[in-house]
Amino acid sequence: MNAIAYQLDPLHDLAGLTVREQQAPRPGPHQVVIAVRAASLNRRDLMLMDGSYPLPATPGVIPLSDGVGEVIAVGDDVTRAALGDRVTASYFVRFISGPQRLAHVAEQYGANHHGMLATYAVIEEDSVVHVPDHLTDIEAATLACAGVVAWAALTKPAPVGPGETILTVGSGNVALFAVQYAKMLGARVISITSGPEKAERLLELGADETVDRSAIPDWDEKVLELTDGHGVEHVVEAVGLPTLSKSVRSAGYNATVTMIGASQLPQGQPFENPFVGTYLGIRRIAVGSRDDFEAMNRAIGQHRMRSVIDRTFPLDQAVAAYRYFRDGDPFGKVVITMPRVRGGPALTSR
Amino acid sequence: MNAIAYQLDPLHDLAGLTVREQQAPRPGPHQVVIAVRAASLNRRDLMLMDGSYPLPATPGVIPLSDGVGEVIAVGDDVTRAALGDRVTASYFVRFISGPQRLAHVAEQYGANHHGMLATYAVIEEDSVVHVPDHLTDIEAATLACAGVVAWAALTKPAPVGPGETILTVGSGNVALFAVQYAKMLGARVISITSGPEKAERLLELGADETVDRSAIPDWDEKVLELTDGHGVEHVVEAVGLPTLSKSVRSAGYNATVTMIGASQLPQGQPFENPFVGTYLGIRRIAVGSRDDFEAMNRAIGQHRMRSVIDRTFPLDQAVAAYRYFRDGDPFGKVVITMPRVRGGPALTSR
Amino acid sequence: MNAIAYQLDPLHDLAGLTVREQQAPRPGPHQVVIAVRAASLNRRDLMLMDGSYPLPATPGVIPLSDGVGEVIAVGDDVTRAALGDRVTASYFVRFISGPQRLAHVAEQYGANHHGMLATYAVIEEDSVVHVPDHLTDIEAATLACAGVVAWAALTKPAPVGPGETILTVGSGNVALFAVQYAKMLGARVISITSGPEKAERLLELGADETVDRSAIPDWDEKVLELTDGHGVEHVVEAVGLPTLSKSVRSAGYNATVTMIGASQLPQGQPFENPFVGTYLGIRRIAVGSRDDFEAMNRAIGQHRMRSVIDRTFPLDQAVAAYRYFRDGDPFGKVVITMPRVRGGPALTSR
Amino acid sequence: MNAIAYQLDPLHDLAGLTVREQQAPRPGPHQVVIAVRAASLNRRDLMLMDGSYPLPATPGVIPLSDGVGEVIAVGDDVTRAALGDRVTASYFVRFISGPQRLAHVAEQYGANHHGMLATYAVIEEDSVVHVPDHLTDIEAATLACAGVVAWAALTKPAPVGPGETILTVGSGNVALFAVQYAKMLGARVISITSGPEKAERLLELGADETVDRSAIPDWDEKVLELTDGHGVEHVVEAVGLPTLSKSVRSAGYNATVTMIGASQLPQGQPFENPFVGTYLGIRRIAVGSRDDFEAMNRAIGQHRMRSVIDRTFPLDQAVAAYRYFRDGDPFGKVVITMPRVRGGPALTSR
Repeated sequence: MNAIAYQLDPLHDLAGLTVREQQAPRPGPHQVVIAVRAASLNRRDLMLMDGSYPLPATPGVIPLSDGVGEVIAVGDDVTRAALGDRVTASYFVRFISGPQRLAHVAEQYGANHHGMLATYAVIEEDSVVHVPDHLTDIEAATLACAGVVAWAALTKPAPVGPGETILTVGSGNVALFAVQYAKMLGARVISITSGPEKAERLLELGADETVDRSAIPDWDEKVLELTDGHGVEHVVEAVGLPTLSKSVRSAGYNATVTMIGASQLPQGQPFENPFVGTYLGIRRIAVGSRDDFEAMNRAIGQHRMRSVIDRTFPLDQAVAAYRYFRDGDPFGKVVITMPRVRGGPALTSR
Repeated sequence: MNAIAYQLDPLHDLAGLTVREQQAPRPGPHQVVIAVRAASLNRRDLMLMDGSYPLPATPGVIPLSDGVGEVIAVGDDVTRAALGDRVTASYFVRFISGPQRLAHVAEQYGANHHGMLATYAVIEEDSVVHVPDHLTDIEAATLACAGVVAWAALTKPAPVGPGETILTVGSGNVALFAVQYAKMLGARVISITSGPEKAERLLELGADETVDRSAIPDWDEKVLELTDGHGVEHVVEAVGLPTLSKSVRSAGYNATVTMIGASQLPQGQPFENPFVGTYLGIRRIAVGSRDDFEAMNRAIGQHRMRSVIDRTFPLDQAVAAYRYFRDGDPFGKVVITMPRVRGGPALTSR
Repeated sequence: MNAIAYQLDPLHDLAGLTVREQQAPRPGPHQVVIAVRAASLNRRDLMLMDGSYPLPATPGVIPLSDGVGEVIAVGDDVTRAALGDRVTASYFVRFISGPQRLAHVAEQYGANHHGMLATYAVIEEDSVVHVPDHLTDIEAATLACAGVVAWAALTKPAPVGPGETILTVGSGNVALFAVQYAKMLGARVISITSGPEKAERLLELGADETVDRSAIPDWDEKVLELTDGHGVEHVVEAVGLPTLSKSVRSAGYNATVTMIGASQLPQGQPFENPFVGTYLGIRRIAVGSRDDFEAMNRAIGQHRMRSVIDRTFPLDQAVAAYRYFRDGDPFGKVVITMPRVRGGPALTSR
Repeated sequence: MNAIAYQLDPLHDLAGLTVREQQAPRPGPHQVVIAVRAASLNRRDLMLMDGSYPLPATPGVIPLSDGVGEVIAVGDDVTRAALGDRVTASYFVRFISGPQRLAHVAEQYGANHHGMLATYAVIEEDSVVHVPDHLTDIEAATLACAGVVAWAALTKPAPVGPGETILTVGSGNVALFAVQYAKMLGARVISITSGPEKAERLLELGADETVDRSAIPDWDEKVLELTDGHGVEHVVEAVGLPTLSKSVRSAGYNATVTMIGASQLPQGQPFENPFVGTYLGIRRIAVGSRDDFEAMNRAIGQHRMRSVIDRTFPLDQAVAAYRYFRDGDPFGKVVITMPRVRGGPALTSR
């Protein structure tokens, strides 16, 4: 099979996703080239397609932030990776560590830097991240976006821990990672979900209790009941504005509500003031730094944690993967796998 | 003059404030009695009067959280204060230290425990706080509510500092304390205010720049300009919901907006979603602990800082003081001073 | 059986431990009286006996900081406990929360306040701590000293967590608690111990690896090997000076070594400068606050963790318990259990 | 004048410092070349010369970590600096942000990367730091080593602040910066120094009190007296082991002693156990990250702080500058200034 790359023309729905041949790129200084093995979809990739993401996609960009591959070429002066390493890229090209600043979020793979939905990808050395050894390629391709933001939500500025109760709202990938991390950090987890199958799977994943919002519309009251009226210490709000009010009412005095989900309110529904009669903090965060990613990987590696995979698609069915991710109500990551390129060029720049 | 105490019957406007004779109380175990020298008004005292405060006032309660006096009697087993000490009370009767929990805020002087608008006050030992020596009684009577909440806003969970820019919104007492503390902590301060006189006084108090919101309605744009487009690191929102949207737009990426002011939106005006296109945190806090108060006092003492006094009234004109505080647009604290009680009882319980 | 209390005359070895009849105490205001169900021994209790503890024991004091009992009388104004509650006392009578200061450590149960080795104990309300429901009395009697200091070591100023490696040095009770907490917090644990049986039990308790210092005298080199040459992030040094140098050499760059153990160097052996060619921090800590204790209990309760019990002795064999604790090389707590007092007085003060 | 560079052959005392002609370097990708305007000396430069520094100097390396210059050439792909910018280099070539790890400290300008004692210097893009505008070149050349380590000592993990007392030990450059920063952060400063002139200058610099160790050998007792017996919250130990014991005795309960100074104990003098009867932390730190440097610069810029300059030497008298720095007991930085190169090459790589 020849090397191919998808390119995204935003605002054209799935028709904006087209395929072209790809030449094996040569790495510049401080860059590496990887042969991509697998890539995965995140909600942001749909938002980049429909224009609702804060950063507009560059027309023609190779989409997807999440992917993993083998280093097949290293540019001059590269010291952070070697040929044959299995690596991924940090979500933000320039955000290495420390507090997040606006400049850190301006460059993103799959948005205005070419991403992972291709046979080859070019990664800036500073954003190279090695993945935990015990993970399959498919699992290792799922970490950069949903994985890191859930980790950042639960560990910064200080980690949650034993004795605390965390509420996850939603059953998307951020929520699934949050359940796994919160358990790893020793906390108790209550998960809001819909339907008994998802509830069952969340319990298998480690959640201590679940509340089915399809069965219990006033799930905030149930959360208060489960916490003896106190409310939870931390909410990972992975849906967005539609559930925010209930999340706030589920939260205890002085709690933190971390908004990650980007769902908007239905047209015409006003935003309810969340600060009526309550003293707490609400914050919105954006993924995390390379340091966060590496700390998360150390934790994942030590605990031999595995991400949840719903379904995989081969590279030439990427459009179907997008459609399934958008419309199929998956539980876990939707991953696209790349065929090995036959007779591929023996790429090395040195 | 005889000993007197005011009592508050809420929901009757200023008519709910009446005076009665007061017997010198005897302290129970772990209590002290002080001869109050001065007390001061806070916005919460108006809210307790009109019923808009989260905690309802007990009918007949002696109002005011802020006041200072001399210990004239100590109960059994008291070790934290001695006869003759000049002390005040921490805002929350039971909140000594650490993270704030709901149980900590349930008991408050001047709300459901008798407060300071009287000749004598009883203070639970655990809430006794000694005041900085260099302050006059009038100044020392101004710290417990507005002083501590401004301190908590700027020092928790981590203190602001040199290299950061703080925005204060409003010219009430919380804002004035925040200007003074932020300068003490080494930060740059921009203050939103109205009118040139207040602006001038804020500059004298230490503000580096002021923006007059009566002259510049789009003051958020001016703040962005003053910060080279970055926005500030921290907003002390000491007005409330009416200015929150502009405060959020004045804040930088990843900033903290601390809501202290309790002003509500005009009837019918919807609450604007503050998380559109911005990544930051908004939190609402409630005063602070005895530990916060004592740390603040160490700072005030070390810097020989003085609080801003607008006007003082004698005890028998307390109603006029309330009216002036509410309607007179003061700049600085409105303080009520107590006459020395002649031939007062030589109270000691041991 | 009649009510009895032991009293300690320091500097007389075990002969300084004598027994006397005890009258059921009446609680003063803000005090509770408990019928003690069980109490346990800590290294500090031996140090109080031989005079090597920083705070001298008051002659005649009832020893032991650790114990649990049922509230049988409450003094005036007590709100933090009720008749029938199962409670213990925080190690420091006056250290409720926040950073530790010298004044906090001046009053200790079993040292200069009467402690738990008796039929009845009086606890100051501020130091009352409720114990996790799932624990037996024997287990609940083991937490105040070794339990809390291990918790404080691993959670302050910031908790250890997944991805980090913790080294515990020693097999005393502090080390055992540290192993359990570090696992609860999600960290990897390497434990230095002596002998294969203790190693086996540490692995059962959760340790990921053990190093037997009797078999591998250069255990620091083994720890470096187990951490790919990096060293650990945190050492809980629960032996003391004799092992400090090896602990430091086991620690990674920028690590924290928390000294809890109080073992001294053999006579004539000089103290080795631990800061040669290494950049890290060494700190010595002293138990913790009531807040720490309560946070620990929430964690223990949530995880249904149980403390390790080596052996129990009845109250009238307390001297034998001391001897066994000192000379018997126990693995886990040595606990003393109190018989129910027959026809005991129906004590209530209100 | 022609372009020249000094080179260091370690272990040959000042004779190891020789001069050679320098060709204007061409920047590689992600590098910039600066025309150095000024450079300054730190104690580590003497240690690199005599072999007592932890990292050995590469023979022939251009020495000095501290210097400032104008960017005269930028390599490919450089985005963090532009032609004409006035910049310096962060001390560690690869330490950008976050917690310090061993790998971060392995590459240092003036040790195993060419440094600033030359007409031209090459800086890796990731370590480029812009300097505050208000500083002269001479002042701006003094920040990277002593400046940053003093900043890191006082701001990490949490900044010191108003109400706290900081003790600085020594009158070298680290101590002088620490005095200035501690005042900027709002703390009280006590400085240990020797001789009345230095004391006077420390007071001018902002110290609240000084203790002359030549007049008061038991200066630790004086510090306790000045702090009402409590001891200070934080010691910046900028001498080293010879004064460590007194520093520890000057420190309060639960204080932090940050060891920066590298002075060793006299031959044969044993290291005194600092943990006898005291509960505190001692840590040794190594300069800081680029993020620390930039945060420090924002603070310096905002406060228009100026570093203390003792004396300047022209480039061709660098050996004299070293000698004076080593033997002349300077108070403030010793700076070497570079002449403008006439008809210098118009270097640009793009």
